[in-house]
Amino acid sequence: MSVIMCPGFKAAGVSSGLKKNGQKDLGLIYSQVPATVAGLFTKNRVKAAPVLLDMELIKSGVCQAVVVNSGNANCCTGEQGMRDARTMTSLAASELGISNDLVFVASTGVIGAPLPIEKVKTAVPDLVGSLHPEGLPDLARSIMTTDTVPKTASAQGVVEGKTFTVTGVAKGAGMIRPDMATMLCFVCTDVGASPDILKEMLVKAADRSFNRITIDGDTSTNDTVMVMANGLSGAVIRSVAHKNIFQKVLNEIFLDLAKQLVRDGEGVTKLVEIMVRGAVSDSDARNVADTVAHSPLVKTSFFGEDANWGRIVGAVGRADAKIDPDKIDVYFDDVQMVKAGMGCGKAAEAEATKVLCKPEFVVTIDLNMGRGSDLMYTCDFSVDYVKINADYRS
Amino acid sequence: MSVIMCPGFKAAGVSSGLKKNGQKDLGLIYSQVPATVAGLFTKNRVKAAPVLLDMELIKSGVCQAVVVNSGNANCCTGEQGMRDARTMTSLAASELGISNDLVFVASTGVIGAPLPIEKVKTAVPDLVGSLHPEGLPDLARSIMTTDTVPKTASAQGVVEGKTFTVTGVAKGAGMIRPDMATMLCFVCTDVGASPDILKEMLVKAADRSFNRITIDGDTSTNDTVMVMANGLSGAVIRSVAHKNIFQKVLNEIFLDLAKQLVRDGEGVTKLVEIMVRGAVSDSDARNVADTVAHSPLVKTSFFGEDANWGRIVGAVGRADAKIDPDKIDVYFDDVQMVKAGMGCGKAAEAEATKVLCKPEFVVTIDLNMGRGSDLMYTCDFSVDYVKINADYRS
Repeated sequence: MSVIMCPGFKAAGVSSGLKKNGQKDLGLIYSQVPATVAGLFTKNRVKAAPVLLDMELIKSGVCQAVVVNSGNANCCTGEQGMRDARTMTSLAASELGISNDLVFVASTGVIGAPLPIEKVKTAVPDLVGSLHPEGLPDLARSIMTTDTVPKTASAQGVVEGKTFTVTGVAKGAGMIRPDMATMLCFVCTDVGASPDILKEMLVKAADRSFNRITIDGDTSTNDTVMVMANGLSGAVIRSVAHKNIFQKVLNEIFLDLAKQLVRDGEGVTKLVEIMVRGAVSDSDARNVADTVAHSPLVKTSFFGEDANWGRIVGAVGRADAKIDPDKIDVYFDDVQMVKAGMGCGKAAEAEATKVLCKPEFVVTIDLNMGRGSDLMYTCDFSVDYVKINADYRS
Repeated sequence: MSVIMCPGFKAAGVSSGLKKNGQKDLGLIYSQVPATVAGLFTKNRVKAAPVLLDMELIKSGVCQAVVVNSGNANCCTGEQGMRDARTMTSLAASELGISNDLVFVASTGVIGAPLPIEKVKTAVPDLVGSLHPEGLPDLARSIMTTDTVPKTASAQGVVEGKTFTVTGVAKGAGMIRPDMATMLCFVCTDVGASPDILKEMLVKAADRSFNRITIDGDTSTNDTVMVMANGLSGAVIRSVAHKNIFQKVLNEIFLDLAKQLVRDGEGVTKLVEIMVRGAVSDSDARNVADTVAHSPLVKTSFFGEDANWGRIVGAVGRADAKIDPDKIDVYFDDVQMVKAGMGCGKAAEAEATKVLCKPEFVVTIDLNMGRGSDLMYTCDFSVDYVKINADYRS
């Protein structure tokens, strides 16, 4: 299914020289009219300058453009970093002929190096000149760091006879963890919605997607998820029924992008859904899913395609949740590996190993204690993950 | 410094065939008289059969021998596992000619496979026959799993003119995390001490050593730390002054063994002390040290010998602690890399890179917020860690 750009938006991505390899590193997304906006930003107490600036700008609830660079996070850069973030927005605003406070900013890359703002300055005219309704793939490439593929998604819905579109672009790779996934994600839509409604729906969609994925458990200083709604479709989200329709489409886009992030996590070869059910509460289920999804021993055994269920049970045992070791069942897809806390034998193990050889599968952990359930998306931990992160800056 | 065995104890290690490669896999430690005993066991809710049995036995406060195997964890093995653990103790007790409830048991290895108790049965006479005052190195080898070197330590002290000895043996490798490090550790001493005093001092020593180390953040189902005191030196620990003397020696042995565990962690090439000071409270300092010590991105940058201080600051930012990003200082040994939240430049980075190339160094994080401090011992995260854990059971 090809990705379609939301009507009324344009995008661009160019090379400004921030990346050493000459690849695209400066992107822009632009709405032909000012849009309402909602955002979620990193919970890390160390926040990059562009995040701090956006958190101020978003109070207005209005945004018309986002300028974003890769290759430098503009984080731990002090007052100069804040000035550089403001300069990025004013350069773009001036070239677009709109007010400074309608332009948001995001950065991703190495922490602690000053942003070479002159490179950005030189490239902005070309960036604005490249804006195009078909520019989404260029934007998607321009925000990549260790990502190996660009990530975009789109879907449509109908409210009161009016078709609306939701289009998203994201980058991720390493440092992905719930609250928030280390990532940038920009979603544009042509519904009309107040900033409050947009925020409410953004939070719900993120909770079911970006807050359910993990790659290495680290979080970034630059995480940003934004939704812009320019209202040009004429579909306005007001009633509960409208919300339900829009939420479903938004959830779909977010989950699609979140899974793309995990699949393309650094060195990842497998996408694994950790489904926990039968917990005393949903929060217990969440704790178990989270602990299993983050366990390096579980993740390396996925990489090794080894049905080492003992490591899964071991991780369950250290989660903050009420469990009875003698009641735990574990399944790899529909192959039961553990029954009442004990292994199901060699035949089951052979079947489970076949499941592990697949690029995507589900590990279901049934605690048989109650009705609580939750899930996490995780990945394997590979030799390449270590190689990529040992050499990142070299 | 050569390790000396505590007088009045003997040890042995033999091959019973539990390990596929024919290496030593069955060990025994024996006191010539019944000793008082204190222990700490895994906090994992999934506990192996030998742990459950020892937790019962230790209520008596008396122990004369510990029989231990590697190659099989006897965990998630149900009622048969409990019977097998009891059989291990009764086989050893019978051969030693002492009561069953004076023999403790420990196991380490793969989870979920039934213990081949017949192999143990066949080997016990040879095991007991091999007991020797110089048998410590054999015992140390018999409890190794992915450990590459045996781990022992000894030290002496004097109480009221009487010299006492403390001798310890440990195994670790992967799955090391505070509360508890996944590990086995047996310490024998010839002081006299009540089980209560022994427990109090064991807890303190463990808190400063095994609970301050991390390799991969996972915990095991089999962790066991035991101290046996047989009183044969005539030195009796009663007063506060005596306790201080004994605690110092015990701490030394525990920290020595704990550092040996990290150095020999799976794939480890570096031992790194994460020292946090200037926190609002000691518990804030602990949280920061713990988060930095567990961060895969920080650990892979140690492996890459990359002075990527941005990852350290990023990890500090997501720790549960009060911080001001603009006050953080970071040092690699005595090289300051970060001052007031910003990098100290290329020259400092070049110096810091030299520190990173050392096999052991200290990362000091000064939050400049208060007087709280704490530390953790961690290691790098290497390509070999992943290889070892992907292939563990093959």
